[in-house]
Amino acid sequence: STLTAMGWFPVLGLLLCLSVGLSEGSKLLVAPMDGSHWLSMKILVMELSARGHEVVVLVPENSLLIKGSQTFTTVIYKVPYTKEELDGKFNELRKGVFSPPKFSDLMTNVERLVNFTTMQVKGCEYMLNNKELMDQLRGEGFDAMLSDPFIPCGSVLAHMFSIPAVYFLNGLPCQLDFRANQCPSPPSYIPIFYSGNTDKMNFLQRAKNFILYNIESYVCTVMYASFDDLVSRYISEDMTYQKLLGEGAIWLLRNDFTFQWPRPIMPNMVFIGGINCVTTKPLPADLEEFVEGSGDDGFIVFTMGSMVSDMPLKTATFFFEAFRQIPQRVLWRYEGKVPENAPKNVKLLKWLPQNDLLAHPKARLFMTHGGTHGIYEGICHGRDNVHRMTARGVAEQLLIFDLTVLSNFYKEKMQTLSSLHHDRPVPPLDLAVFWTEFVMRHKGADHLRVAAHDLNWIQYFCLDVLAFLTLIVVTVIGITVKCCLFCTRKCCGRGTAVKKKQA
Amino acid sequence: STLTAMGWFPVLGLLLCLSVGLSEGSKLLVAPMDGSHWLSMKILVMELSARGHEVVVLVPENSLLIKGSQTFTTVIYKVPYTKEELDGKFNELRKGVFSPPKFSDLMTNVERLVNFTTMQVKGCEYMLNNKELMDQLRGEGFDAMLSDPFIPCGSVLAHMFSIPAVYFLNGLPCQLDFRANQCPSPPSYIPIFYSGNTDKMNFLQRAKNFILYNIESYVCTVMYASFDDLVSRYISEDMTYQKLLGEGAIWLLRNDFTFQWPRPIMPNMVFIGGINCVTTKPLPADLEEFVEGSGDDGFIVFTMGSMVSDMPLKTATFFFEAFRQIPQRVLWRYEGKVPENAPKNVKLLKWLPQNDLLAHPKARLFMTHGGTHGIYEGICHGRDNVHRMTARGVAEQLLIFDLTVLSNFYKEKMQTLSSLHHDRPVPPLDLAVFWTEFVMRHKGADHLRVAAHDLNWIQYFCLDVLAFLTLIVVTVIGITVKCCLFCTRKCCGRGTAVKKKQA
Repeated sequence: STLTAMGWFPVLGLLLCLSVGLSEGSKLLVAPMDGSHWLSMKILVMELSARGHEVVVLVPENSLLIKGSQTFTTVIYKVPYTKEELDGKFNELRKGVFSPPKFSDLMTNVERLVNFTTMQVKGCEYMLNNKELMDQLRGEGFDAMLSDPFIPCGSVLAHMFSIPAVYFLNGLPCQLDFRANQCPSPPSYIPIFYSGNTDKMNFLQRAKNFILYNIESYVCTVMYASFDDLVSRYISEDMTYQKLLGEGAIWLLRNDFTFQWPRPIMPNMVFIGGINCVTTKPLPADLEEFVEGSGDDGFIVFTMGSMVSDMPLKTATFFFEAFRQIPQRVLWRYEGKVPENAPKNVKLLKWLPQNDLLAHPKARLFMTHGGTHGIYEGICHGRDNVHRMTARGVAEQLLIFDLTVLSNFYKEKMQTLSSLHHDRPVPPLDLAVFWTEFVMRHKGADHLRVAAHDLNWIQYFCLDVLAFLTLIVVTVIGITVKCCLFCTRKCCGRGTAVKKKQA
Repeated sequence: STLTAMGWFPVLGLLLCLSVGLSEGSKLLVAPMDGSHWLSMKILVMELSARGHEVVVLVPENSLLIKGSQTFTTVIYKVPYTKEELDGKFNELRKGVFSPPKFSDLMTNVERLVNFTTMQVKGCEYMLNNKELMDQLRGEGFDAMLSDPFIPCGSVLAHMFSIPAVYFLNGLPCQLDFRANQCPSPPSYIPIFYSGNTDKMNFLQRAKNFILYNIESYVCTVMYASFDDLVSRYISEDMTYQKLLGEGAIWLLRNDFTFQWPRPIMPNMVFIGGINCVTTKPLPADLEEFVEGSGDDGFIVFTMGSMVSDMPLKTATFFFEAFRQIPQRVLWRYEGKVPENAPKNVKLLKWLPQNDLLAHPKARLFMTHGGTHGIYEGICHGRDNVHRMTARGVAEQLLIFDLTVLSNFYKEKMQTLSSLHHDRPVPPLDLAVFWTEFVMRHKGADHLRVAAHDLNWIQYFCLDVLAFLTLIVVTVIGITVKCCLFCTRKCCGRGTAVKKKQA
């Protein structure tokens, strides 16, 4: 009946039905990363459950955002840290959000991130040592693993259980995702994170980018040291995390080229940017009343991401005073201290339905910290995205007073991006579902795996071949020269001999 | 109403409706390549016409396969050669089909190909000089150009009319498509055409591949000399064909990774392999009777491609005698001389509905020359593909007698490939339509264009940066050494002076 209903487009209909039909009843193991990462992955997990797959999510007993659900099974595992210790490390990590992004801060931020992920690795190891749980999971006979490679748990389990891994991510620090998947990233036009470069660089920017590209390789080894240690102990001594990630069948990247610089990609990379803003729900009554009351001036959405609802009082007061002077209403996700005479056009909330608010016709501006969810939801609904300005402390005053000017300036550009972002043959959620099911149906995606995985870097760049060819050329030249010398000497020698005889 | 009908999948429905709605009435100029290439492109052209676009196809007055149609407009242009001259050059070109593919033949085949394409270039130039036609076309205000880059006409017109180009192709000789689109092709795991290598190479194979990769660059300049000449005269002096192709918005590649080795790709490459076997029609009555009468033994489809219906009598006789000894019926596309007592299980045809025959349940084996249409239709319908054997003269006898063995040997592998090939989120024809319409809607696809197009190869590989950094290091070392020497000399000098004084 579905087929008939889709009559005007029968082949696509058939394919989609086929895909749903064949994979129904597949078993998927999910190893999520805690925090905002989970919010996106959850969308896919819910959808896969709704389509009839048996989904089992691994949840640490102390977690920030992962909770159980009616639609999927959770397996809760013990971890060697308390909720307080977890929150402590996380608070350290988010300190970096309010300092301007200077290169000098990079190593501090890396250190905080390493502290946080090392804790997650410890939790992971605790689970891997839980023999009973491991045996139970192995016995389930999962068809595939859906994992956030930001922590190594999923990759290790996929390898141990010999099931293909589907990775779900926005990107990994120091491009480990591209490195592991053998995807070329020429530093001549692919700007390094934190470099401040775009894809069009002059000579000095290119030099900076090139140097940072090589520094990044070193940073990589520091950042992933605890991961490398884990995989070498649980899999084999010569295994590294990068190599392990290279076994991934499909990479679902929460990214697309309306935001990312165009670059080489691999056949097993699937771009599902915008997966977090496919559907919108109506606003709760009180919010609807507040935003409707904003009149023609409209309202502003201000959030620093799902994990940061607090900020230093001095910064907060600055924002309150700035908001007092604008005609727009402001919806602000804020749980910190509130000054006594806070302006009435500001509504504070513990949590706000960001995606639904941005889809509202009266939404005028979106102020965010620059997290990927906010950016994609901004692009989705064509709102102005001024994250680069709010991130720079110095620009705040200018920003608030010139909101309207900025708003109009960015509006057009943002709407173009939005129209490009939406104009895709398959919506991101359906694409993510398709490829996850594909991996379950075919037990991997080996036909998309490049042979580069079998080469070391000397072989990859043909340096051994170059050395070999150089050796041949040098030998040939050497022999030729020797021969010539020998001949010359013989001739001269005979000449001298003859001369001597004549003498 | 379509939206309601597709209720269970509303977002996809919406997107597809949107895409059809917005582009209706767009104007597309088509510059096809004559011969079998046209047969695939025609499928897309017909579909775009059927979806309400105004499609204008440029046809040379003397052509091999391009004909007019009720569903699209043709503009016929004069060419400076007769049908006989065209056929003559083409017959030369297809001579290569029956010789075994040795590397020594490569240059001969390249020469024949160059002779053939040079003729097409002359035809193209004749059109470009037709000022009246050019003015008429320019006045039409086309939204995009759909072109087969195997000949340069379409690219030149797209540049001259300032409209985005969509390229439709299987691949270009010496990887010019990948080169032009700035797609990295490491010779360490991407086998060069004609090298006989696969994607897994040992050291010597890699050395061979590396050397051939560099030879290919030279072959490129020879092959495309007449194209380069044309574009430099009609566009600008510093324009090459490779640079011009680099302006292409979208590359529709009739290829996919069930057949092609996995490799890096670019965001503007769309894989539509199998576009030529999406739909099957019932067989004509006489064919249906013949194949139905084959019983349990089934039948064999034998064709050397759309352009070759003839072969040397000696070869033909060999095939006839071989077919006499097998129980299967044979459908053979053959127009050459027939021996007196030809076997009764062989039916000769001037043209055969290859795709429809291969989809028939009694089809047992597909013997082909290895053209891409046959291969994809073979993959589509899960038939055994023994093109590599038929291409090698020596293996023919073995091949025919061991058909059944081979058949079972390849059957399973081929069916796996077939199931992978079919398992895609969007059927190839719809994907090709989507991206052609996308380019018309957005006047190109700039957000998918890599910045590498603005770099020369020294910049691309950061060789200038490397030289600069080396210079700095050498200078610093030089100055340090000089300083040390100066200090040492001064100390020693003073030492000597002191000594002298003491003396």
